[in-house]
Amino acid sequence: MTAEPEPILRTAIEHATNSVPIARPDDDVSAMLDALRGHRFDSAAVIAVCRDGVLVGLATVERLLAAPPGSTMGEVMDTDPPVVAPHTHQERAAWAAVHRDEPGLAVVDDAGRFLGLIPPQRLLAVLLAEHDEDLARMGGFLGTASAAKAASEERVTRRLWHRLPWLFVGLAGAMLAAGVVGSFEEALRANVLLAFFVPAVVYLADAVGTQTETLVVRGLSVGVPVGRIAVREVITGGLIGLLLAAVAGPVTFWIWGDAEVATAVALALLAACGVATVVAMVLPWLFSAMRLDPVYGSGPLATVAQDLLSILIYLETATAIVG
Amino acid sequence: MTAEPEPILRTAIEHATNSVPIARPDDDVSAMLDALRGHRFDSAAVIAVCRDGVLVGLATVERLLAAPPGSTMGEVMDTDPPVVAPHTHQERAAWAAVHRDEPGLAVVDDAGRFLGLIPPQRLLAVLLAEHDEDLARMGGFLGTASAAKAASEERVTRRLWHRLPWLFVGLAGAMLAAGVVGSFEEALRANVLLAFFVPAVVYLADAVGTQTETLVVRGLSVGVPVGRIAVREVITGGLIGLLLAAVAGPVTFWIWGDAEVATAVALALLAACGVATVVAMVLPWLFSAMRLDPVYGSGPLATVAQDLLSILIYLETATAIVG
Repeated sequence: MTAEPEPILRTAIEHATNSVPIARPDDDVSAMLDALRGHRFDSAAVIAVCRDGVLVGLATVERLLAAPPGSTMGEVMDTDPPVVAPHTHQERAAWAAVHRDEPGLAVVDDAGRFLGLIPPQRLLAVLLAEHDEDLARMGGFLGTASAAKAASEERVTRRLWHRLPWLFVGLAGAMLAAGVVGSFEEALRANVLLAFFVPAVVYLADAVGTQTETLVVRGLSVGVPVGRIAVREVITGGLIGLLLAAVAGPVTFWIWGDAEVATAVALALLAACGVATVVAMVLPWLFSAMRLDPVYGSGPLATVAQDLLSILIYLETATAIVG
Repeated sequence: MTAEPEPILRTAIEHATNSVPIARPDDDVSAMLDALRGHRFDSAAVIAVCRDGVLVGLATVERLLAAPPGSTMGEVMDTDPPVVAPHTHQERAAWAAVHRDEPGLAVVDDAGRFLGLIPPQRLLAVLLAEHDEDLARMGGFLGTASAAKAASEERVTRRLWHRLPWLFVGLAGAMLAAGVVGSFEEALRANVLLAFFVPAVVYLADAVGTQTETLVVRGLSVGVPVGRIAVREVITGGLIGLLLAAVAGPVTFWIWGDAEVATAVALALLAACGVATVVAMVLPWLFSAMRLDPVYGSGPLATVAQDLLSILIYLETATAIVG
């Protein structure tokens, strides 16, 4: 048995340490290097350069070592280093550090005062934990489960415990889906051909929705607002629906020879793909607005909601056309 | 327009630099700190301690600074640091560093000779790129697409280009699914109730398979072999199938009142969940064995293959029982 891992905390400030070297812009680099000796720092890879408590730059130890004699901290520091607010979500914080190619990330308050530094080891741990957690949540595990942990060591009983909750939600959804199909019993009896295309429409709408969910979830994780994605996504979803309908309609007519059913399949695909794109944007945004991980919006709950909608759209369209 | 990002290289050695400080175990720490000055290193956060070219330890700059006067490198170094072979996959390499809580990772050859060090910035970039790539591939984008990039800036035409290939594969699968349902036309005509449960069985088997895929893909990424997961996963999948069948059978009978159909749904769920678990392990393993990213085994191709199998299993079971 191994102990439960320490929970990974969620905002930037909780990963920051202020046991790091702090210098002033006019400090001499060589004197600074001497002054560091004999101190115990959590991280000394990056030196915070502050003026009256306000962060004005960061200097890596590599820059200090390479500086010509007589340089000041102000001359070797990066004057526009990656900084985040204390309550920045941890994944956005890690993202900010990577995109500036800095090993550490400074946390500053609204007034620019230096609150602490997130050392590279913490950033690495955060990114790894976020990746693992995203995959576990998308895969249909309880929110606290780690996919990597389960893969390497979890016992059968814990595996069941982490998975069954979402599967029973799924079972309820599945029974509801049977009820929705069943409510079109008369139409299906009259034209059994209609039943053939239920899984096809459900699968394709789900595939289109999953692509949009992936973008929206990723965008929300790294700080791209849904609004900035929305217009292009709706256009893309509509075009995809048109293209799929334009191929699926003729193919259905060519194989099964029923023009009404072929029209129904094409129109339902167009509608279902459009709806799937919108739902795929709304669900992660809703989870995010409720301060939950948006990745739940591309998990098993989202799939079952999406599937129910697709079945309803297809069978409504089909009965309207085929009569 | 922005330039295409530099492709992230795939193995440990390609991320390593040998522009790092190297010391001998009996070097004096204080003299070492003096000797570092005036040099330009790619990374000086970690000092490699070698004896005749063979790595014997790593020492962080924090340990050097905190060392009492007169200490030697051998006394302050971590004598069991995280090391990887040159051709270790980049994600496993990053994983190794995080689990030892070290900011850098040494790359050594078979004889233990020091080849280079992967600095923390590179490890961060690797983890972020792997995360993004995994999500894009699972979401049904072309292998070269980045979900984060698409979310933040990709134009509609490029979005379509990155998504349509998998959707047209999916469309072919969807038409095949219609054909499979159609091959049971007589049975469906005779008992239209059978058609109600097609989406239910497909959804649940897919949900069960997705959970296993998530574990297998994650396991393969971080170095847990499929064999070590297999036995527990098959037992888990079987138990899940039994539990779902034990609930779905009675519920189906209670709502729709047909004992034969209820039995067919229960047995098909059991069989489909079992098969889904096995397929979910085999597909990522196959991709991995072909030296492709195992995450393809939980993408749209895997889903369509899984769905076809589930439809076949359900309708075969149903026609065998209902006649």
